[in-house]
Amino acid sequence: MTQLGIVKRNIERADPAAVEKLSKFGVATIHEAMGRVGLMKTYMRPIYPGARCCGAAVTVLAQPGDNWMLHVAAEQIRPGDVVVVACTTDNEDGMFGDLLATSFRARGAKGLVIDAGVRDVRDLTEMQFAVFSRAISAKGTVKATLGSINIPVVCAGALVNPGDVVVADDDGVVIVPRLAAQATADAAAAREANEADKRQKLASGVLGLDMYKMREPLEKAGLKYVD
Amino acid sequence: MTQLGIVKRNIERADPAAVEKLSKFGVATIHEAMGRVGLMKTYMRPIYPGARCCGAAVTVLAQPGDNWMLHVAAEQIRPGDVVVVACTTDNEDGMFGDLLATSFRARGAKGLVIDAGVRDVRDLTEMQFAVFSRAISAKGTVKATLGSINIPVVCAGALVNPGDVVVADDDGVVIVPRLAAQATADAAAAREANEADKRQKLASGVLGLDMYKMREPLEKAGLKYVD
Amino acid sequence: MTQLGIVKRNIERADPAAVEKLSKFGVATIHEAMGRVGLMKTYMRPIYPGARCCGAAVTVLAQPGDNWMLHVAAEQIRPGDVVVVACTTDNEDGMFGDLLATSFRARGAKGLVIDAGVRDVRDLTEMQFAVFSRAISAKGTVKATLGSINIPVVCAGALVNPGDVVVADDDGVVIVPRLAAQATADAAAAREANEADKRQKLASGVLGLDMYKMREPLEKAGLKYVD
Amino acid sequence: MTQLGIVKRNIERADPAAVEKLSKFGVATIHEAMGRVGLMKTYMRPIYPGARCCGAAVTVLAQPGDNWMLHVAAEQIRPGDVVVVACTTDNEDGMFGDLLATSFRARGAKGLVIDAGVRDVRDLTEMQFAVFSRAISAKGTVKATLGSINIPVVCAGALVNPGDVVVADDDGVVIVPRLAAQATADAAAAREANEADKRQKLASGVLGLDMYKMREPLEKAGLKYVD
Amino acid sequence: MTQLGIVKRNIERADPAAVEKLSKFGVATIHEAMGRVGLMKTYMRPIYPGARCCGAAVTVLAQPGDNWMLHVAAEQIRPGDVVVVACTTDNEDGMFGDLLATSFRARGAKGLVIDAGVRDVRDLTEMQFAVFSRAISAKGTVKATLGSINIPVVCAGALVNPGDVVVADDDGVVIVPRLAAQATADAAAAREANEADKRQKLASGVLGLDMYKMREPLEKAGLKYVD
Amino acid sequence: MTQLGIVKRNIERADPAAVEKLSKFGVATIHEAMGRVGLMKTYMRPIYPGARCCGAAVTVLAQPGDNWMLHVAAEQIRPGDVVVVACTTDNEDGMFGDLLATSFRARGAKGLVIDAGVRDVRDLTEMQFAVFSRAISAKGTVKATLGSINIPVVCAGALVNPGDVVVADDDGVVIVPRLAAQATADAAAAREANEADKRQKLASGVLGLDMYKMREPLEKAGLKYVD
Repeated sequence: MTQLGIVKRNIERADPAAVEKLSKFGVATIHEAMGRVGLMKTYMRPIYPGARCCGAAVTVLAQPGDNWMLHVAAEQIRPGDVVVVACTTDNEDGMFGDLLATSFRARGAKGLVIDAGVRDVRDLTEMQFAVFSRAISAKGTVKATLGSINIPVVCAGALVNPGDVVVADDDGVVIVPRLAAQATADAAAAREANEADKRQKLASGVLGLDMYKMREPLEKAGLKYVD
Repeated sequence: MTQLGIVKRNIERADPAAVEKLSKFGVATIHEAMGRVGLMKTYMRPIYPGARCCGAAVTVLAQPGDNWMLHVAAEQIRPGDVVVVACTTDNEDGMFGDLLATSFRARGAKGLVIDAGVRDVRDLTEMQFAVFSRAISAKGTVKATLGSINIPVVCAGALVNPGDVVVADDDGVVIVPRLAAQATADAAAAREANEADKRQKLASGVLGLDMYKMREPLEKAGLKYVD
Repeated sequence: MTQLGIVKRNIERADPAAVEKLSKFGVATIHEAMGRVGLMKTYMRPIYPGARCCGAAVTVLAQPGDNWMLHVAAEQIRPGDVVVVACTTDNEDGMFGDLLATSFRARGAKGLVIDAGVRDVRDLTEMQFAVFSRAISAKGTVKATLGSINIPVVCAGALVNPGDVVVADDDGVVIVPRLAAQATADAAAAREANEADKRQKLASGVLGLDMYKMREPLEKAGLKYVD
Repeated sequence: MTQLGIVKRNIERADPAAVEKLSKFGVATIHEAMGRVGLMKTYMRPIYPGARCCGAAVTVLAQPGDNWMLHVAAEQIRPGDVVVVACTTDNEDGMFGDLLATSFRARGAKGLVIDAGVRDVRDLTEMQFAVFSRAISAKGTVKATLGSINIPVVCAGALVNPGDVVVADDDGVVIVPRLAAQATADAAAAREANEADKRQKLASGVLGLDMYKMREPLEKAGLKYVD
Repeated sequence: MTQLGIVKRNIERADPAAVEKLSKFGVATIHEAMGRVGLMKTYMRPIYPGARCCGAAVTVLAQPGDNWMLHVAAEQIRPGDVVVVACTTDNEDGMFGDLLATSFRARGAKGLVIDAGVRDVRDLTEMQFAVFSRAISAKGTVKATLGSINIPVVCAGALVNPGDVVVADDDGVVIVPRLAAQATADAAAAREANEADKRQKLASGVLGLDMYKMREPLEKAGLKYVD
Repeated sequence: MTQLGIVKRNIERADPAAVEKLSKFGVATIHEAMGRVGLMKTYMRPIYPGARCCGAAVTVLAQPGDNWMLHVAAEQIRPGDVVVVACTTDNEDGMFGDLLATSFRARGAKGLVIDAGVRDVRDLTEMQFAVFSRAISAKGTVKATLGSINIPVVCAGALVNPGDVVVADDDGVVIVPRLAAQATADAAAAREANEADKRQKLASGVLGLDMYKMREPLEKAGLKYVD
């Protein structure tokens, strides 16, 4: 059962080598390599174009309008981590700004993925601190009610366990389970190798219909060409 | 009746000279020139600032989570076309990415307008391939169920017939019926010629109230000035 | 009672010195300085990154799909004002474009905050005329029905009285009541002075948990650390 | 091109016998009989449980916040018609209430399908006048700007030509093109005859897996059973 | 300036006779009588069909996920009041349930209008306690942060001052300013008297086009009839 | 890692006695008993007033617009189960209607919770088959792509493991983890026993302020009473 008021200090993080390898690929490629699962909802967007990050998840469950647990989370960050904040209910308040970003970066965080709002967008952009959020909001938050750190959370529709790999770029956010990190990285590499050749063929005018041998299945499915 | 499983190969496209003339004007101007109709919903946005395209529509009706028909559409593209994708139901999946963009461009497409999601946004931006979509999503799609090509479709609230002119820029997407292309281009030109003079007057401090002679109708409508 | 068909000509504007002082601070800081009230909804976004403005409010109550009152408003603008447009019902139509922007700027307006749509985004961006809106829409509007000018309005969830200070930047839009302008500016200054020191400490690795002395209240609230 | 300011008086309505036959079937059945097309968006809901109607479409294109054309439409109603109102832009205002319902009923209308708001819901429910709308709103509307009557419109995502058959019930709203009315009614009848037998089998415990012979295609698609 | 942490005990309530008279009319009629202003957003819906209430407003400004101030409000209720709850940010949590309803009713409250969520819907329905809310949510709330009682609030887009009249029914919620209560009631009565005659005429087949003398203005606006 | 194409046949279901005990309580009570976690999003609504169900979860992960896996799920239902359908992406299509309901009921299912659409609402209501869904939609679905049965899923924001207890009523849907079922039922019982007394006190006019001893903490938090 989800428990409130808990900070788990020792979590197993995904293998750093696998994280490093995953960081070479885009979110779409990794999502395909995982078998088309693990994506967050499309409302999670980077706060500036080109933001991207890849790292092990420190998870936070916060209460609406309350960023107390983000301060608690700072202490649990290790270099290379990405903080993932879920909320017990839909909330857009500005739980995170330039002060927390300064602190998170000092602890080694690579980025933040938050199913709530953030503020100080101009400063965060200047810092090039990668943030993916549900909203931008100047609304301040209180520090009154406990949530938890490093428990499994559902963030923007995706299950995130502490230590899972978080990859985020212009296409969205994908979660790679900790133990699947290496296999997913390998599958992503295989997929990407395969794409260069396809791209070249398509650029030369070959049709996907022919390259992927779709004409027969399309005909079998009943496709009719008319003039 | 809308039919699924049909590819219409020979469509009449709007006159290229009219398309060329329309490409000189912005969406807002063309929409006004048409009598304030033909716009898609405001959720259709360019995936990068400054994207714009103008061309004859190749229409696609796709199923949710299924991009099979986009591959079928590629073969029907002629240089200068814009592909318009409607979906049988609301769906945000990433039906289009850099491989399809490579193929569409190789066929001569000027852009894509899709009432669904797209991915590989960074690559599409580097390619400067103009895309207007409902969402950005890394979610992969299957190739399992037929839709149709070059039938009339409703895309983001606008009726699009194959061969109509699609004009898209930062202000949104407007559809000019094929046979109205020349007249609309002429009306847009007349409208724009008229605007330069207005802009100069307004810049010099003349009020719209006076320039458009609104004071009398406002008074007649009952407007009261109080101190 | 809200009255339609009224233009109030003489309004008391916030003290220019206070406005000037407020213009030095970001929206998030001012919102905190006011006691965490006065923000508009998060759907109000700048039409280009980096847009910002600060000035006294000229308020407009418009009808859906009708921008007649924006022309009436132009005459009431004094140098330094920001026009705030509320609508009698949710509406995304493009009530404002480059011609009105030219006119507003000629009258001295610093920007526009509108709970509706705007168009000619490319031109407005080139002009660097600061606009914060609910939507971007090429949809044209009529000039048929009266609203009012310089009455109290509710815009995107915030009460705005004519003469109040409007501050808008990448973080959103905040309204400072006219008579609270100076006190708010002072509180913002105090708050910002305070932040530089905090930022430095956090950057050096000090935790917010310690800097804000949160450990004791967290323990009292029942927070448990587990391994 | 869509034209504003037009009232088309003589429209061809679907064959009354076909309309009568269609009225025996539910929206889901008819939608399937048409090949899974023709549905309006799911936000179109009956204003009271159990509302349903079936009839030939009198189409209306209205402006936001303006119900003038609904009065114009009343004169074009013939017994058995259903009025379908589209709007040039998203709008939720209460364009229709008990007075218009009284007038429409006096003219023989069977119902209203409106991509905007309605009011006087209690009265409309007492009258059992079938209304399907996007919203319920007390907001009054003006009578200032022209739209059109009996032109093709896009209502809640569906193309509606005047004279098409509109069928609406608890499951939503479907449009049957005029010339497809009889064939669709026949297909619906065939489908429904077929369903009674299926229902009985399923009720007796037969699985759809067996009744539809899905086990083989599922296995071929790669489905794995694990313990 | 909005102040948090304040309970205003002595408020002037609208004249009880005016409230009593207003309670005879529907929301749509009152909204028209006020000149088409004062409505809340359409997302405010009764939690059961037929709910309605009319009374003087006790206003509450609450924090997201925190219902502490609703308990504070209970003490300020006088017989005939309607409690109006605004929130400092969008929140759907279940701030109100059968226990608070029991307490509010014991204090004489006629209903609740809340721009947040409520729960125990079955119990509230059995009690026939009139509730209009943004959402239904079982989510529990904390009691940790102060808001205010009986300050002006913006609730679902409408400005509400303590003591104003709140009228709510199936068509939505309208706010009548305290000092306008009697005049609005009179105008509503006049309007309703006027409607009975119109209804009868329309029922007899007279067209609104003729009854409201619209044919001439429509023709002047350019309406064209075609066959 | 989530796997597609898997049907897990043997799952451990929550203890039937605990399920039976949980079925006595409402969703709000159980959610509180669990420590305020486990709720689905508020958009999940019963398709008819008064629908309610409680049972062990058979989980389904479906593809958008594809209900193939619901047929696969039928075979895995045991008497007392509730089927929970998640979708790999947001989708409102009508995946479930009266035929599947007949089959599910024949297998002993107590209800359906589906983060997608359903149809045949009138029939389902007559059957009194409890359904909680995101939407009502007549849109038909294909049977083309595999999902999975009885894997952990995220449905409407809540993590659901097969065998967990699903409780749904007018207030929404809550998930009780399998192993927490008995403890949660006990806590719910304790909570409810406690509420009867509170209800009586509040009904007699005692204020929550006094009953919950809130006056002191409110004063400490800074609450000020003014006249």
